[in-house]
Amino acid sequence: MPDPVVFSGGTVGAWNVTRVAAVRGAALATVARIDKGVRPVADAAWVLSGVTSNLRYTNTAEKRVLDATPSVLGRPAATRAALIPITKSAAWWALAQDERRAVLEEQSRHIAIGSEYLAAVSRQLVHCRDQPGAVFDFLTWFEFAPADEPRFDELLAKLRASPEWRFVEREVDLRLEKAA
Amino acid sequence: MPDPVVFSGGTVGAWNVTRVAAVRGAALATVARIDKGVRPVADAAWVLSGVTSNLRYTNTAEKRVLDATPSVLGRPAATRAALIPITKSAAWWALAQDERRAVLEEQSRHIAIGSEYLAAVSRQLVHCRDQPGAVFDFLTWFEFAPADEPRFDELLAKLRASPEWRFVEREVDLRLEKAA
Repeated sequence: MPDPVVFSGGTVGAWNVTRVAAVRGAALATVARIDKGVRPVADAAWVLSGVTSNLRYTNTAEKRVLDATPSVLGRPAATRAALIPITKSAAWWALAQDERRAVLEEQSRHIAIGSEYLAAVSRQLVHCRDQPGAVFDFLTWFEFAPADEPRFDELLAKLRASPEWRFVEREVDLRLEKAA
Repeated sequence: MPDPVVFSGGTVGAWNVTRVAAVRGAALATVARIDKGVRPVADAAWVLSGVTSNLRYTNTAEKRVLDATPSVLGRPAATRAALIPITKSAAWWALAQDERRAVLEEQSRHIAIGSEYLAAVSRQLVHCRDQPGAVFDFLTWFEFAPADEPRFDELLAKLRASPEWRFVEREVDLRLEKAA
């Protein structure tokens, strides 16, 4: 079943915000902390919510690779995180399924590139385009150990240089550190 | 952009309910009328809501066929309608994208069968699986002239006999007539 995931930006929560970068389009209001839960916290400066959902592009062979290294959230060593909300363009969403798949994987190797980092980077894809009033299409969440942040940046650099990213209209990159 | 679509079952609305059949699983509470809009009506017996969204399986060639015969809702001659909420099984949603596509089209010819009826049957697919608290995955909506109802039933019979329907866990078939 789809599970709700809610990010509340404000003064409470398990994650301290260390950096906010507007990669493309407008940033989000600067906040001190982020709470990640199943409902909004009171008095949040902003709330971003969505649901985990079924796979949209991953084929059988690719799923086998992902299933072999399941993403475990909350690992004690993973004291760094990134929340990267993304909006894709109307042109992306107007494409047929096979056209989107071709850009995402055959041209951009999105799934293949991500698979190289499965052991170091735990991740969760939250869908929000179909939520009423949503301003982002996806809320992507990553957890990693401090020593793995350079590898995570390498992963992002590869994806941002790919043809798929020509369809990204807004992207905010928030870096986080587990609160003591 | 995804547009909200809300069906409210109760005593008001533009559509009189003429028949409710529980095709698989539980029915819905019997109501006299259905309102189709963008928000729930007050005092509804039940409310089903979701959003229109991007294509999930349709490829480029199939999209070309659909785009050539766009579905027009509200045609004056289309005084009959059907609202068919559907829930698919957990096994369906756990399949990889290529596996779901293979069942839906290569095995079941869902898009091809539907394309034969484009001129007679206007349709709208409302997604609700990713809405918090949703009990159905899809709310499928069809409008047709009274004389075309047998053709619509033929379309349904073909789909219900297909391998894809082995993954349908709940299906309710409500038939409607435009209120005078």
